[in-house]
Amino acid sequence: MKNAAIIIALLSASCTFYSQDQDSVCVKKIFNEALSSRMAYENLRYLCKNTKGRISGTPQAQAAVKFIQQVMSGMGLDTVFLQELMVKRWVRGNRETGTVISDRAGRHDLTISALGTSVGTADEGITCKVVEVKTFEDLERLGEENVSGKIVFFNRPMDPTSYNTFYSYGQAANQRVNGASEAAKYGAKGVIVRSLTTSLDDFPHTGVMYYKKGIPEIPAVCVSTIDADLLSELLKEDKDLRLRLVSNCRNMDEVQSFNVIGELRGSVYPDEFITIGGHLDAWDTGEGAHDDGVGCVQAIEVLRLFSVLGIQPKRTVRAVMFMDEEIALRGGLKYAEVAAGNKEKHYAAVESDEGGFAPYGFGLSAADERFKKLAALQKYFEPYGFHKFFRGGGGADIEPLQPFGILMISPEIEMQRYFDYHHSPNDTFEQVNIREMQLGSAGIAALVYLIDKYDL
Amino acid sequence: MKNAAIIIALLSASCTFYSQDQDSVCVKKIFNEALSSRMAYENLRYLCKNTKGRISGTPQAQAAVKFIQQVMSGMGLDTVFLQELMVKRWVRGNRETGTVISDRAGRHDLTISALGTSVGTADEGITCKVVEVKTFEDLERLGEENVSGKIVFFNRPMDPTSYNTFYSYGQAANQRVNGASEAAKYGAKGVIVRSLTTSLDDFPHTGVMYYKKGIPEIPAVCVSTIDADLLSELLKEDKDLRLRLVSNCRNMDEVQSFNVIGELRGSVYPDEFITIGGHLDAWDTGEGAHDDGVGCVQAIEVLRLFSVLGIQPKRTVRAVMFMDEEIALRGGLKYAEVAAGNKEKHYAAVESDEGGFAPYGFGLSAADERFKKLAALQKYFEPYGFHKFFRGGGGADIEPLQPFGILMISPEIEMQRYFDYHHSPNDTFEQVNIREMQLGSAGIAALVYLIDKYDL
Repeated sequence: MKNAAIIIALLSASCTFYSQDQDSVCVKKIFNEALSSRMAYENLRYLCKNTKGRISGTPQAQAAVKFIQQVMSGMGLDTVFLQELMVKRWVRGNRETGTVISDRAGRHDLTISALGTSVGTADEGITCKVVEVKTFEDLERLGEENVSGKIVFFNRPMDPTSYNTFYSYGQAANQRVNGASEAAKYGAKGVIVRSLTTSLDDFPHTGVMYYKKGIPEIPAVCVSTIDADLLSELLKEDKDLRLRLVSNCRNMDEVQSFNVIGELRGSVYPDEFITIGGHLDAWDTGEGAHDDGVGCVQAIEVLRLFSVLGIQPKRTVRAVMFMDEEIALRGGLKYAEVAAGNKEKHYAAVESDEGGFAPYGFGLSAADERFKKLAALQKYFEPYGFHKFFRGGGGADIEPLQPFGILMISPEIEMQRYFDYHHSPNDTFEQVNIREMQLGSAGIAALVYLIDKYDL
Repeated sequence: MKNAAIIIALLSASCTFYSQDQDSVCVKKIFNEALSSRMAYENLRYLCKNTKGRISGTPQAQAAVKFIQQVMSGMGLDTVFLQELMVKRWVRGNRETGTVISDRAGRHDLTISALGTSVGTADEGITCKVVEVKTFEDLERLGEENVSGKIVFFNRPMDPTSYNTFYSYGQAANQRVNGASEAAKYGAKGVIVRSLTTSLDDFPHTGVMYYKKGIPEIPAVCVSTIDADLLSELLKEDKDLRLRLVSNCRNMDEVQSFNVIGELRGSVYPDEFITIGGHLDAWDTGEGAHDDGVGCVQAIEVLRLFSVLGIQPKRTVRAVMFMDEEIALRGGLKYAEVAAGNKEKHYAAVESDEGGFAPYGFGLSAADERFKKLAALQKYFEPYGFHKFFRGGGGADIEPLQPFGILMISPEIEMQRYFDYHHSPNDTFEQVNIREMQLGSAGIAALVYLIDKYDL
């Protein structure tokens, strides 16, 4: 009787014993387990609270690598290993201030933050007049005579009327990414960029910027949206006000870093890979909770769900914590390079990098026939709020796997809040809702389970 | 040229000039305007920060009535009026403490809060042994000999595995609502109930309870989930520990209060009504932001959207701020009673009372044919994340309108976070995301516009 009970318990805990028509039961087990476990959430807490500042190349990033390696090593996976790569190293330094000086409008300290990979100012900073623009066309229209010697203030807000906040972000991001070089073409001495966020807040939202070759490298900072509005008002009061920017950020020599990879070996096709990725590096001003601590702990959680529920995938399932998504994507590029070098067979890849909010569907990069088969799986997910499977899908770190012709999968996540936190001091552990994050992990696990089982 | 430009501007600002196939353009205008305006959000801020504690019957509730009346009076609506009603008055008092006293396990202060309409304790409190149960069946099994003279600790958590948190809430709520009378049947001296929340937190989540006639009325409090776990652990250490509960909450005489109503008169059927409701009263420990300040400011926002976009509804559209949803639903009952007395024709009613989170659809209480027509409207909403129209729909305050045979509409809202805030000190203005709330207002406005226009 006792042994029978144990066998029944084992049978009911495992998913692999079920026939095809019981997939919904297995999917339910996956969701039940994910929604009942705090492990991924506690991993996220550790990552946020103990490795804050983990820009690639920093000691904090190295601590994150060690922590994730330890977590996965304690899970009884088949393999846990590091993949070496070289990353740029940029250091924020300990001084960054922005001060408005005006006889008419008074003195005002602005909430600013240097943009990633920007050069710093001299010790005494730069003190210049300011010219406000919305677009690169404005710069062209103003020309050198109105821009030279000044700080250019890019103040085009993200469009609030677009439901798709990622689209609005894309429409506004060139100010941050290329603004410095565009302004320097006309002799600007520095740029200050309105934070890319849909909210009106006191946080500077940083992010990467790139210099164009052959153009002087000038300092670039972002300013909170509240202070961008303030600066714009002050300029109306006194167009000749001066802005003093001080920053001792700097670029240093490249250093060694790592992707961290854990594997559950496939029972039928161990040499075919399904990659589930997040990125381990994060901007230093926040804790990198939504961007992208969540993606990392979700990838690990998928392996845990498979393990505890006794799901044996036919293909090898890898959780990959990519390094350096935020600056130069070295982790994603290295992973694809090694895969190509080793002639690995890659079957599918998922990346969760849109925050730990409630998922509402999946984007799938499949052509007609294949998409139809995948879309038929949606019925299993509807009870958990995944209302929509649609074509499309990808992610910065898995994009380099494109040449393998694999299926790319993006969990599609409720997107209204993401830019409240993105790249700012507001991206903290406390802003992640455990249930929303758990639903994401469960959804990825269930989809990978079905795709692998039915060779979709 | 100047006049032509003004006419074109007026035409493009208004929705009523568009033909049927341009409805999607009008819907887009509604969403654009809602997503660009901070007015509803600022109204919410005022309500949260200046009328905190607005349980029905309190001066704060009266201040909320005045504020909403002022806001609507300043909007150029056709009518703004108050609807008088009598409400119960319950006062929390200024003392509520829960203290564990145990020789073995030490002394521990628990985070508690009296349940709404509970009686208080005597000044010195009650100090009793504790018996932990999960269900009313547990009580029955234990019987009077194990319950009499004790404090009953109801500790059944909300089921985390259900995606539908409202369902889990419903499954656990009887402990809070009826626990005191059930326990008193067996001679209990008081009850302490695990907070109804999906989160593990430090907040007591209060809410209404009712006494059954003919059974002694004993004090009832809730305890935070963290302290419920603690109390359960302490009971394992010392099953004879004592719990001291002190509360000077009390029930008082009924007082006068009001529903607040604003109208845009219908251009074709002014005597037919579409009601858009939220409830103005809120539990006192938080600010009543998600529950249900959001519903109130969204209802007002719908009228504002109609006004500024020049939408003239065929039927009279009413924003109704109901009083007393949390305790005895007197506002909803009074509204239906007056409607019946005046032989009003009611056409449809919407209630937003599930928090200010991102909407994912609408529930509609329509039979087959009518539902089919309504569901065909979904295409206009898909671009804004409303993925699902389904049968069902209603809300506590509009339920009494059921006899009118009207269409009931519920915006369906992302539901994972609601119970993090529900009835607790955590339900504050800061927890509402402006965009998620704006999408809700816009969705209601657009749906009411289409239903009214096409007589659906």
